[in-house]
Amino acid sequence: MPHIPLSDDLPGIRGLLAFKPTSGMKVAQLIEQLLRGDSSLSSADRERIAAHVSQLNECEFCARSHAATIPHLDAQITANGPTAADPGATPRLRALLDLAGEVTRGGLYVTAETVRSARAAGASDEDIHDTVLIAAAFCMLNRYVDGLGAITPTDDAAYDAMGIHMAAHGYLGAAPAIS
Amino acid sequence: MPHIPLSDDLPGIRGLLAFKPTSGMKVAQLIEQLLRGDSSLSSADRERIAAHVSQLNECEFCARSHAATIPHLDAQITANGPTAADPGATPRLRALLDLAGEVTRGGLYVTAETVRSARAAGASDEDIHDTVLIAAAFCMLNRYVDGLGAITPTDDAAYDAMGIHMAAHGYLGAAPAIS
Repeated sequence: MPHIPLSDDLPGIRGLLAFKPTSGMKVAQLIEQLLRGDSSLSSADRERIAAHVSQLNECEFCARSHAATIPHLDAQITANGPTAADPGATPRLRALLDLAGEVTRGGLYVTAETVRSARAAGASDEDIHDTVLIAAAFCMLNRYVDGLGAITPTDDAAYDAMGIHMAAHGYLGAAPAIS
Repeated sequence: MPHIPLSDDLPGIRGLLAFKPTSGMKVAQLIEQLLRGDSSLSSADRERIAAHVSQLNECEFCARSHAATIPHLDAQITANGPTAADPGATPRLRALLDLAGEVTRGGLYVTAETVRSARAAGASDEDIHDTVLIAAAFCMLNRYVDGLGAITPTDDAAYDAMGIHMAAHGYLGAAPAIS
Protein backbone atom coordinates (compact mmCIF):
# COMPACT_ATOMS: atom_id res chain seq x y z
CA MET A 1 0.00 0.00 0.00
CA PRO A 2 1.77 3.19 -1.19
CA HIS A 3 2.35 5.97 1.37
CA ILE A 4 1.73 8.67 -1.27
CA PRO A 5 -0.69 8.70 -4.23
CA LEU A 6 0.85 6.70 -7.12
CA SER A 7 -0.54 5.75 -10.51
CA ASP A 8 -1.80 2.14 -10.50
CA ASP A 9 -0.34 1.42 -13.93
CA LEU A 10 3.24 2.41 -13.01
CA PRO A 11 4.73 -0.34 -10.82
CA GLY A 12 7.85 -0.02 -8.67
CA ILE A 13 10.15 2.91 -9.09
CA ARG A 14 8.35 4.14 -12.22
CA GLY A 15 5.44 5.39 -10.12
CA LEU A 16 7.85 7.27 -7.84
CA LEU A 17 9.79 8.85 -10.72
CA ALA A 18 6.47 10.04 -12.18
CA PHE A 19 5.32 11.49 -8.84
CA LYS A 20 8.06 14.14 -9.08
CA PRO A 21 9.58 14.29 -12.58
CA THR A 22 12.31 16.83 -11.71
CA SER A 23 13.96 14.45 -9.27
CA GLY A 24 12.78 11.38 -11.22
CA MET A 25 14.83 12.41 -14.25
CA LYS A 26 18.02 12.79 -12.16
CA VAL A 27 17.52 9.38 -10.55
CA ALA A 28 16.93 7.72 -13.95
CA GLN A 29 20.01 9.39 -15.48
CA LEU A 30 22.16 8.11 -12.62
CA ILE A 31 20.84 4.53 -12.99
CA GLU A 32 21.44 4.66 -16.75
CA GLN A 33 25.05 5.78 -16.25
CA LEU A 34 25.76 3.19 -13.54
CA LEU A 35 24.23 0.18 -15.36
CA ARG A 36 24.64 1.09 -19.04
CA GLY A 37 27.27 3.88 -19.18
CA ASP A 38 31.05 3.46 -19.49
CA SER A 39 32.47 0.85 -17.10
CA SER A 40 35.11 -1.84 -16.89
CA LEU A 41 32.25 -4.19 -15.86
CA SER A 42 29.75 -5.64 -18.34
CA SER A 43 26.15 -4.50 -18.01
CA ALA A 44 25.18 -8.08 -17.11
CA ASP A 45 27.68 -8.10 -14.21
CA ARG A 46 26.45 -4.69 -13.07
CA GLU A 47 22.88 -6.04 -13.06
CA ARG A 48 24.11 -9.03 -11.03
CA ILE A 49 25.50 -6.62 -8.41
CA ALA A 50 22.21 -4.65 -8.45
CA ALA A 51 20.09 -7.78 -8.02
CA HIS A 52 22.37 -9.15 -5.27
CA VAL A 53 22.23 -5.95 -3.20
CA SER A 54 18.45 -5.67 -3.70
CA GLN A 55 18.00 -9.24 -2.49
CA LEU A 56 20.12 -8.54 0.62
CA ASN A 57 17.90 -5.51 1.25
CA GLU A 58 14.80 -7.69 0.64
CA CYS A 59 13.50 -5.31 -2.03
CA GLU A 60 11.38 -7.66 -4.11
CA PHE A 61 10.65 -5.22 -6.94
CA CYS A 62 14.31 -4.30 -7.57
CA ALA A 63 15.68 -7.81 -7.01
CA ARG A 64 13.25 -9.50 -9.42
CA SER A 65 13.29 -6.80 -12.12
CA HIS A 66 17.10 -6.50 -12.28
CA ALA A 67 17.61 -10.28 -12.13
CA ALA A 68 15.20 -10.51 -15.10
CA THR A 69 17.49 -8.37 -17.29
CA ILE A 70 20.52 -10.68 -16.94
CA PRO A 71 19.63 -13.50 -19.40
CA HIS A 72 18.74 -10.91 -22.04
CA LEU A 73 22.02 -9.01 -21.59
CA ASP A 74 24.01 -12.26 -21.65
CA ALA A 75 22.20 -13.14 -24.91
CA GLN A 76 23.30 -9.77 -26.36
CA ILE A 77 26.93 -10.52 -25.43
CA THR A 78 26.74 -13.97 -26.99
CA ALA A 79 25.23 -12.55 -30.17
CA ASN A 80 27.93 -9.90 -30.44
CA GLY A 81 30.96 -12.08 -30.83
CA PRO A 82 33.94 -13.89 -29.53
CA THR A 83 34.36 -12.09 -26.16
CA ALA A 84 31.07 -13.77 -25.64
CA ALA A 85 31.58 -16.28 -22.86
CA ASP A 86 29.11 -15.58 -20.08
CA PRO A 87 31.38 -14.57 -17.24
CA GLY A 88 28.84 -16.09 -14.83
CA ALA A 89 30.28 -16.37 -11.35
CA THR A 90 33.97 -15.86 -12.12
CA PRO A 91 36.28 -15.42 -9.11
CA ARG A 92 36.46 -11.68 -9.91
CA LEU A 93 32.68 -11.31 -9.91
CA ARG A 94 32.34 -13.40 -6.74
CA ALA A 95 34.86 -11.13 -4.98
CA LEU A 96 33.02 -8.02 -6.19
CA LEU A 97 29.70 -9.43 -4.94
CA ASP A 98 31.34 -9.91 -1.51
CA LEU A 99 32.44 -6.26 -1.63
CA ALA A 100 28.91 -5.20 -2.60
CA GLY A 101 27.56 -7.15 0.37
CA GLU A 102 29.81 -5.22 2.75
CA VAL A 103 28.70 -1.90 1.22
CA THR A 104 25.08 -2.96 1.72
CA ARG A 105 25.70 -3.39 5.43
CA GLY A 106 27.34 0.05 5.59
CA GLY A 107 30.33 1.96 4.21
CA LEU A 108 32.35 1.39 7.38
CA TYR A 109 31.96 -2.39 7.00
CA VAL A 110 34.15 -2.49 3.88
CA THR A 111 37.50 -4.05 4.80
CA ALA A 112 40.90 -3.67 3.16
CA GLU A 113 41.02 -7.47 3.13
CA THR A 114 37.93 -7.73 0.89
CA VAL A 115 39.35 -5.10 -1.47
CA ARG A 116 42.66 -7.00 -1.56
CA SER A 117 40.86 -10.25 -2.37
CA ALA A 118 39.02 -8.54 -5.23
CA ARG A 119 42.32 -7.24 -6.64
CA ALA A 120 43.89 -10.69 -6.29
CA ALA A 121 40.96 -12.06 -8.34
CA GLY A 122 41.70 -9.55 -11.10
CA ALA A 123 39.57 -6.53 -10.16
CA SER A 124 40.81 -3.09 -11.28
CA ASP A 125 40.43 0.26 -9.49
CA GLU A 126 37.48 1.03 -11.77
CA ASP A 127 35.84 -2.35 -10.99
CA ILE A 128 36.14 -1.55 -7.27
CA HIS A 129 34.85 2.02 -7.66
CA ASP A 130 31.90 0.97 -9.81
CA THR A 131 30.96 -1.95 -7.56
CA VAL A 132 30.89 0.28 -4.46
CA LEU A 133 28.88 3.00 -6.22
CA ILE A 134 26.37 0.56 -7.77
CA ALA A 135 25.89 -1.22 -4.43
CA ALA A 136 25.47 2.14 -2.67
CA ALA A 137 23.02 3.33 -5.34
CA PHE A 138 20.84 0.24 -4.85
CA CYS A 139 20.83 0.91 -1.10
CA MET A 140 19.20 4.20 -2.16
CA LEU A 141 16.83 2.73 -4.75
CA ASN A 142 15.68 -0.15 -2.52
CA ARG A 143 14.90 2.33 0.29
CA TYR A 144 13.11 4.69 -2.12
CA VAL A 145 10.92 1.88 -3.49
CA ASP A 146 10.02 0.16 -0.21
CA GLY A 147 10.14 3.30 1.96
CA LEU A 148 7.26 4.76 -0.06
CA GLY A 149 5.48 1.41 -0.47
CA ALA A 150 5.75 1.40 -4.28
CA ILE A 151 3.50 -1.00 -6.19
CA THR A 152 5.17 -4.44 -6.37
CA PRO A 153 3.81 -6.92 -8.96
CA THR A 154 3.84 -10.57 -7.91
CA ASP A 155 3.64 -12.48 -11.21
CA ASP A 156 6.75 -13.65 -13.07
CA ALA A 157 5.40 -12.48 -16.43
CA ALA A 158 5.48 -8.84 -15.30
CA TYR A 159 9.16 -9.12 -14.33
CA ASP A 160 10.07 -10.99 -17.54
CA ALA A 161 8.56 -8.18 -19.57
CA MET A 162 10.49 -5.58 -17.52
CA GLY A 163 13.73 -7.52 -17.92
CA ILE A 164 13.37 -7.65 -21.72
CA HIS A 165 12.58 -3.94 -21.85
CA MET A 166 15.38 -2.84 -19.49
CA ALA A 167 17.94 -5.01 -21.32
CA ALA A 168 16.98 -3.51 -24.68
CA HIS A 169 16.26 0.11 -23.75
CA GLY A 170 17.95 0.91 -20.44
CA TYR A 171 16.53 3.26 -17.84
CA LEU A 172 15.99 6.72 -19.30
CA GLY A 173 12.52 5.75 -20.50
CA ALA A 174 11.56 4.94 -16.88
CA ALA A 175 11.49 8.67 -16.16
CA PRO A 176 8.58 10.77 -17.35
CA ALA A 177 9.17 13.79 -19.56
CA ILE A 178 9.54 16.98 -17.52
CA SER A 179 6.66 19.22 -18.49
CA MET B 1 43.13 5.22 3.83
CA PRO B 2 41.40 5.25 0.42
CA HIS B 3 40.81 1.90 -1.31
CA ILE B 4 41.45 3.45 -4.75
CA PRO B 5 43.91 6.23 -5.78
CA LEU B 6 42.36 9.61 -4.90
CA SER B 7 43.76 13.12 -5.17
CA ASP B 8 45.01 14.35 -1.76
CA ASP B 9 43.57 17.82 -2.27
CA LEU B 10 39.99 16.62 -2.90
CA PRO B 11 38.48 15.51 0.42
CA GLY B 12 35.36 13.40 0.85
CA ILE B 13 33.05 12.80 -2.06
CA ARG B 14 34.90 15.31 -4.29
CA GLY B 15 37.80 12.91 -4.73
CA LEU B 16 35.37 10.13 -5.71
CA LEU B 17 33.46 12.29 -8.19
CA ALA B 18 36.79 13.26 -9.80
CA PHE B 19 37.93 9.61 -10.01
CA LYS B 20 35.21 8.94 -12.60
CA PRO B 21 33.71 12.18 -13.95
CA THR B 22 30.99 10.51 -16.05
CA SER B 23 29.32 9.03 -12.99
CA GLY B 24 30.48 11.92 -10.76
CA MET B 25 28.46 14.41 -12.78
CA LYS B 26 25.26 12.33 -12.45
CA VAL B 27 25.75 11.99 -8.68
CA ALA B 28 26.34 15.75 -8.29
CA GLN B 29 23.28 16.62 -10.40
CA LEU B 30 21.10 14.39 -8.23
CA ILE B 31 22.42 15.94 -4.98
CA GLU B 32 21.83 19.44 -6.40
CA GLN B 33 18.23 18.60 -7.30
CA LEU B 34 17.50 16.97 -3.94
CA LEU B 35 19.01 19.69 -1.73
CA ARG B 36 18.63 22.84 -3.87
CA GLY B 37 16.03 22.01 -6.54
CA ASP B 38 12.24 22.48 -6.27
CA SER B 39 10.80 21.14 -3.01
CA SER B 40 8.13 21.86 -0.42
CA LEU B 41 10.97 21.69 2.16
CA SER B 42 13.49 24.50 2.68
CA SER B 43 17.10 23.79 1.74
CA ALA B 44 18.03 24.17 5.42
CA ASP B 45 15.53 21.46 6.41
CA ARG B 46 16.76 19.21 3.60
CA GLU B 47 20.33 19.64 4.90
CA ARG B 48 19.07 18.77 8.40
CA ILE B 49 17.68 15.50 7.03
CA ALA B 50 20.97 14.84 5.18
CA ALA B 51 23.07 15.50 8.29
CA HIS B 52 20.77 13.39 10.50
CA VAL B 53 20.91 10.35 8.20
CA SER B 54 24.69 10.72 7.79
CA GLN B 55 25.11 10.80 11.56
CA LEU B 56 22.98 7.65 11.96
CA ASN B 57 25.22 6.00 9.35
CA GLU B 58 28.30 7.32 11.21
CA CYS B 59 29.63 8.99 8.06
CA GLU B 60 31.77 11.75 9.56
CA PHE B 61 32.51 13.57 6.31
CA CYS B 62 28.87 13.85 5.20
CA ALA B 63 27.47 14.54 8.69
CA ARG B 64 29.91 17.37 9.45
CA SER B 65 29.89 18.98 5.99
CA HIS B 66 26.09 19.04 5.63
CA ALA B 67 25.58 20.21 9.23
CA ALA B 68 28.00 23.06 8.46
CA THR B 69 25.73 24.40 5.68
CA ILE B 70 22.69 24.87 7.95
CA PRO B 71 23.60 28.14 9.76
CA HIS B 72 24.51 29.73 6.44
CA LEU B 73 21.24 28.67 4.78
CA ASP B 74 19.23 29.85 7.81
CA ALA B 75 21.06 33.19 7.55
CA GLN B 76 19.99 33.42 3.88
CA ILE B 77 16.36 32.86 4.88
CA THR B 78 16.58 35.50 7.59
CA ALA B 79 18.16 37.97 5.20
CA ASN B 80 15.46 37.38 2.60
CA GLY B 81 12.45 38.57 4.50
CA PRO B 82 9.43 37.97 6.61
CA THR B 83 8.94 34.23 6.02
CA ALA B 84 12.22 34.19 7.79
CA ALA B 85 11.64 32.42 11.07
CA ASP B 86 14.10 29.56 11.39
CA PRO B 87 11.80 26.56 11.42
CA GLY B 88 14.31 24.79 13.68
CA ALA B 89 12.85 21.64 15.15
CA THR B 90 9.19 22.21 14.37
CA PRO B 91 6.86 19.23 14.99
CA ARG B 92 6.69 18.70 11.20
CA LEU B 93 10.49 18.54 10.87
CA ARG B 94 10.78 16.27 13.92
CA ALA B 95 8.27 13.86 12.37
CA LEU B 96 10.13 13.92 9.06
CA LEU B 97 13.44 13.21 10.83
CA ASP B 98 11.77 10.17 12.44
CA LEU B 99 10.68 9.02 8.97
CA ALA B 100 14.24 9.56 7.66
CA GLY B 101 15.56 7.43 10.53
CA GLU B 102 13.29 4.54 9.52
CA VAL B 103 14.42 4.84 5.88
CA THR B 104 18.05 4.71 7.07
CA ARG B 105 17.39 1.36 8.73
CA GLY B 106 15.77 0.06 5.55
CA GLY B 107 12.81 0.70 3.26
CA LEU B 108 10.75 -2.05 4.88
CA TYR B 109 11.12 -0.41 8.30
CA VAL B 110 8.96 2.57 7.31
CA THR B 111 5.59 2.26 9.07
CA ALA B 112 2.21 3.68 8.12
CA GLU B 113 2.07 5.01 11.69
CA THR B 114 5.17 7.19 11.19
CA VAL B 115 3.78 8.51 7.89
CA ARG B 116 0.45 9.26 9.63
CA SER B 117 2.25 11.13 12.42
CA ALA B 118 4.12 13.22 9.84
CA ARG B 119 0.85 14.12 8.11
CA ALA B 120 -0.74 14.99 11.48
CA ALA B 121 2.19 17.36 12.08
CA GLY B 122 1.49 19.10 8.76
CA ALA B 123 3.62 17.17 6.25
CA SER B 124 2.40 17.05 2.64
CA ASP B 125 2.77 14.23 0.11
CA GLU B 126 5.75 16.08 -1.38
CA ASP B 127 7.36 16.50 2.07
CA ILE B 128 7.05 12.73 2.59
CA HIS B 129 8.36 11.87 -0.89
CA ASP B 130 11.31 14.25 -0.62
CA THR B 131 12.22 13.13 2.89
CA VAL B 132 12.28 9.45 1.87
CA LEU B 133 14.32 10.16 -1.28
CA ILE B 134 16.82 12.44 0.49
CA ALA B 135 17.28 9.91 3.32
CA ALA B 136 17.71 7.11 0.76
CA ALA B 137 20.18 9.19 -1.25
CA PHE B 138 22.34 9.78 1.84
CA CYS B 139 22.32 6.03 2.48
CA MET B 140 23.97 5.88 -0.96
CA LEU B 141 26.35 8.81 -0.45
CA ASN B 142 27.48 7.70 3.02
CA ARG B 143 28.26 4.21 1.66
CA TYR B 144 30.06 5.66 -1.37
CA VAL B 145 32.26 7.90 0.82
CA ASP B 146 33.13 5.40 3.56
CA GLY B 147 33.00 2.29 1.34
CA LEU B 148 35.90 3.67 -0.70
CA GLY B 149 37.67 5.20 2.31
CA ALA B 150 37.42 8.79 1.02
CA ILE B 151 39.68 11.38 2.63
CA THR B 152 38.00 12.75 5.80
CA PRO B 153 39.36 16.01 7.26
CA THR B 154 39.31 16.28 11.04
CA ASP B 155 39.51 20.04 11.70
CA ASP B 156 36.40 22.20 12.15
CA ALA B 157 37.79 24.95 9.89
CA ALA B 158 37.72 22.63 6.88
CA TYR B 159 34.03 21.85 7.44
CA ASP B 160 33.13 25.50 8.10
CA ALA B 161 34.68 26.43 4.75
CA MET B 162 32.75 23.63 3.02
CA GLY B 163 29.50 24.68 4.68
CA ILE B 164 29.89 28.28 3.51
CA HIS B 165 30.69 27.15 -0.03
CA MET B 166 27.88 24.56 -0.25
CA ALA B 167 25.32 27.03 1.15
CA ALA B 168 26.31 29.66 -1.41
CA HIS B 169 27.04 27.55 -4.51
CA GLY B 170 25.32 24.17 -4.12
CA TYR B 171 26.73 20.92 -5.45
CA LEU B 172 27.28 21.10 -9.19
CA GLY B 173 30.77 22.55 -8.69
CA ALA B 174 31.70 19.43 -6.68
CA ALA B 175 31.79 17.46 -9.93
CA PRO B 176 34.71 17.86 -12.30
CA ALA B 177 34.15 18.89 -15.89
CA ILE B 178 33.80 15.89 -18.20
CA SER B 179 36.71 16.06 -20.60
